[in-house]
Amino acid sequence: MAEFVLHCMAQSGHSYKVALMLELCGADWEASWVDFFNGQTRSEEFRSSLNEMGEVPVLVHGNETLTQSAVIMDYLVEKFGKFGWDTDEERREILRWTIFDNQKVSGMIGPLRFMRTLIKTGETDVVKFLDGRAKSALAILDKHLAKNDFAIGSKLTTADFSLCSYLFYEGELGIDVNDYQNVTAWLGRIKSQPGWKHPYDLMPGHPLPSAA
Amino acid sequence: MAEFVLHCMAQSGHSYKVALMLELCGADWEASWVDFFNGQTRSEEFRSSLNEMGEVPVLVHGNETLTQSAVIMDYLVEKFGKFGWDTDEERREILRWTIFDNQKVSGMIGPLRFMRTLIKTGETDVVKFLDGRAKSALAILDKHLAKNDFAIGSKLTTADFSLCSYLFYEGELGIDVNDYQNVTAWLGRIKSQPGWKHPYDLMPGHPLPSAA
Repeated sequence: MAEFVLHCMAQSGHSYKVALMLELCGADWEASWVDFFNGQTRSEEFRSSLNEMGEVPVLVHGNETLTQSAVIMDYLVEKFGKFGWDTDEERREILRWTIFDNQKVSGMIGPLRFMRTLIKTGETDVVKFLDGRAKSALAILDKHLAKNDFAIGSKLTTADFSLCSYLFYEGELGIDVNDYQNVTAWLGRIKSQPGWKHPYDLMPGHPLPSAA
Repeated sequence: MAEFVLHCMAQSGHSYKVALMLELCGADWEASWVDFFNGQTRSEEFRSSLNEMGEVPVLVHGNETLTQSAVIMDYLVEKFGKFGWDTDEERREILRWTIFDNQKVSGMIGPLRFMRTLIKTGETDVVKFLDGRAKSALAILDKHLAKNDFAIGSKLTTADFSLCSYLFYEGELGIDVNDYQNVTAWLGRIKSQPGWKHPYDLMPGHPLPSAA
């Protein structure tokens, strides 16, 4: 068994944050597929043994079981000494953008893409609401990236892994990321990191059986 | 002028997280009212001078301008040595529940209460969506609090300030918090802290002119 086991599935942007970091750190890791679409994360077994919050990703490392992508990445910063902070000020900048992501970028684009593309609800009022919120957040991020190569300035950190994750599912969001030119350029900088892979090349479970 | 200036308004649960912490730390602080309901946080001036993310709270302390409640509380932990962590494991537990709050508790209840009670949209599909998401998150929190006095175990931390904030606007959520008995008991434990105050007694701008 690999040193790190990531419970995840290919469609999960939150899992991709961690999978990408593990890959770019050169970690000895493997994925354990979670059957999200048949309710595994809602099961009592999953909640009692892996994550009471009923979510992926979950990282198992030795005796440690960690949940929430931000927490897992914080742990990996400690283990690998990469993509983290040098000062408390940088640590708080990472936190600032990570929270913004979880609430307003991934927090809106995740359910938006789920409804639009995975369960295909059509353009309901809920989809339109999430779309509007997501676009407002992307406009804020785009403006910030006009003056910064990465989320906290000149270096790549876990905040970037958090913010970029769902945006690499191009064509599934119903939002054209090219409308945000600084976001697009920043995604290019992340994509050019040695070892970068698309979520579907990094985690199992794509395509979905129903879409095959 | 007080040592800490918190830009906020009484209706903001995210601001309340910080206001409550400042109060319980015995900080020398004052509130500076933000005219959110007339668009101040969306203005170019607010975004360029206080917060590019267009949100409250913003804390000004000397030359420091800090945004995002989680970041501000992290900063206050350092200043006051209270409500924080003793180990990296505790720090990550605080982060885990703070992210869960920002994405799924406050992240859903904030807009839900805004639509239901402040701008009164009626029971639209969006309100029903947010209501469902909020109740799922409260059920997870309730289960967790059956075995824990506070979010990370036996001590009160910034994770509790984050999670509790909107829940003290009782009667404005359209959710009966009493349906979650462990949540109710935990709110009682927070309320019994010396110096606890309701958001409307801690920050300016209540009642709204239109509701007066």
